[in-house]
Amino acid sequence: MMRLGIDLGGTNTVAGLCTTDGQLIGKVSAPTPIGDADALCRTMRELCVAVCEKHNTPKEEIEQIGIGLPGVVVKSTCTLEFGTNLGLSHVCFANAFASEFSCPVVIDNDANCAALGEFAGGAGRGSENMLMVTLGTGVGGGIVLGGKLYTGRDDLAGEIGHMVLVPNGVSCNCGRKGCFETYASATGLIRLAREAMEQDSDSILHEWTRDTKLNAKMVCDACDAGDALAQKVFSDYCDYLACGLTNLVNVFQPDSIVIGGGVAGYGEKLFVPLRERVHAQQFHVSPEGTPIRGAALGNDAGIIGAALL
Amino acid sequence: MMRLGIDLGGTNTVAGLCTTDGQLIGKVSAPTPIGDADALCRTMRELCVAVCEKHNTPKEEIEQIGIGLPGVVVKSTCTLEFGTNLGLSHVCFANAFASEFSCPVVIDNDANCAALGEFAGGAGRGSENMLMVTLGTGVGGGIVLGGKLYTGRDDLAGEIGHMVLVPNGVSCNCGRKGCFETYASATGLIRLAREAMEQDSDSILHEWTRDTKLNAKMVCDACDAGDALAQKVFSDYCDYLACGLTNLVNVFQPDSIVIGGGVAGYGEKLFVPLRERVHAQQFHVSPEGTPIRGAALGNDAGIIGAALL
Repeated sequence: MMRLGIDLGGTNTVAGLCTTDGQLIGKVSAPTPIGDADALCRTMRELCVAVCEKHNTPKEEIEQIGIGLPGVVVKSTCTLEFGTNLGLSHVCFANAFASEFSCPVVIDNDANCAALGEFAGGAGRGSENMLMVTLGTGVGGGIVLGGKLYTGRDDLAGEIGHMVLVPNGVSCNCGRKGCFETYASATGLIRLAREAMEQDSDSILHEWTRDTKLNAKMVCDACDAGDALAQKVFSDYCDYLACGLTNLVNVFQPDSIVIGGGVAGYGEKLFVPLRERVHAQQFHVSPEGTPIRGAALGNDAGIIGAALL
Repeated sequence: MMRLGIDLGGTNTVAGLCTTDGQLIGKVSAPTPIGDADALCRTMRELCVAVCEKHNTPKEEIEQIGIGLPGVVVKSTCTLEFGTNLGLSHVCFANAFASEFSCPVVIDNDANCAALGEFAGGAGRGSENMLMVTLGTGVGGGIVLGGKLYTGRDDLAGEIGHMVLVPNGVSCNCGRKGCFETYASATGLIRLAREAMEQDSDSILHEWTRDTKLNAKMVCDACDAGDALAQKVFSDYCDYLACGLTNLVNVFQPDSIVIGGGVAGYGEKLFVPLRERVHAQQFHVSPEGTPIRGAALGNDAGIIGAALL
């Protein structure tokens, strides 16, 4: 038997054919239709048929279709409750594939699917308990405990970006102030850099942003170029990120933490100072601190995780 | 079959006889011998024999003995690794009862046992996922997920008191600064009151502490007496506590949070403002916020939880 995993993104939708133990055989993609539930279901269905045909897999061999959705889901009813980036709410996917496939359909949010993918076949392999932390526009989280996704009441668990780290700090979209994600996301790194640039005109970032908007990669590149301001900003960013990760380590004591998202692209230059800070602060009895690794599967994590739901 | 649960405290040791579903039949206690592993094992053994005799239960009917220990444990080897309050370290309890009982012996830390007890027969009954938060000298935690204690790597999970809530805040025993427990414990409440008293001579607490040391109950009593300073301090304390609890809700989305420890003795006068603050800030889709309740079993929670390990 085989499985299909769908990563439904705000831009593209990808369907992948996977073995039951999470080997990705192949994938096909198409632009995501926004704000149109019927078109979205049709696109997903066609992609599923296409990837099966491409790899000579009869539809009867598909035992389950899983979808990773960007938004708030209700797993028990297979419903996307709120999906701002898709322009859709209250859409049930239980029967979306019925005209082509007779297998069950399951869903979860995209962050959880990515975590499950990394756990099964990526950087979290071999762990029993793993946290995935995604450093992008916000800070996303996925919690795998005892080999299974932990999703809690109303499937809402894992909003690690919305732990307050700085009381009365920067306002967050969630309504609180000083949330972890306002400091530790790519957006947070950019804000820290902007604030520092306002205080100090001596940085290569002023030159680089004359005609272009500042982004997280530019801060990292400026660090590499030896820019003192960027290095100070990056060090402060690592302090905030390590503080939140240590909080999570003391609560969960996971076997590993997997870091994904845009900022993770800076690789060991991020992970080395992070490990140093977390290991120095965390509760431990083993001499080794909690392993912190970069995500290994890139965008495939979400497809594989969806297939394994 | 029956079980024995032992709550090993820094002052007293209590052994309880329990049914396999956590009904406490009876208990006996004795002072805890400090700094002497042999005497400690003898005391526990004698208490176990005594409670069985008292309730006419043959020793062969005991299927398991569980011990809740104040300190860092290694469950797999049945060892107390560090037990500062007992003046003991590296003590294995696997064979401590062998001369009288042939059943297995299991251990966990006291906070986890209390959580399991409240989950099985107290304020957490009916939950699938429950967090217990103990507001005493420190802030302790116990995590029950899917009906089981979650203890993580090296059995160290649940140190919720050691999430930093205020970066570079008050120094904590753990080495970090601004930990949740430095603000939300009874000790934290007392410190907040002392700091306020230094700034303001107009409080009944000045009179009450002329010959007595300030304690958490005095702050609560002063609130009841209409003391404005105490009420302001208590409101600030609720802000800190609610901030940390909301962080945990957003990460775990538990079915309930059970609050124990000395400060929980203030009852609904604590829980009402806490619920209000947490429910206003937490992620939710249900109209109801996460239920927050006071612990129901008092000191028996640790005995029952130990019996159910």
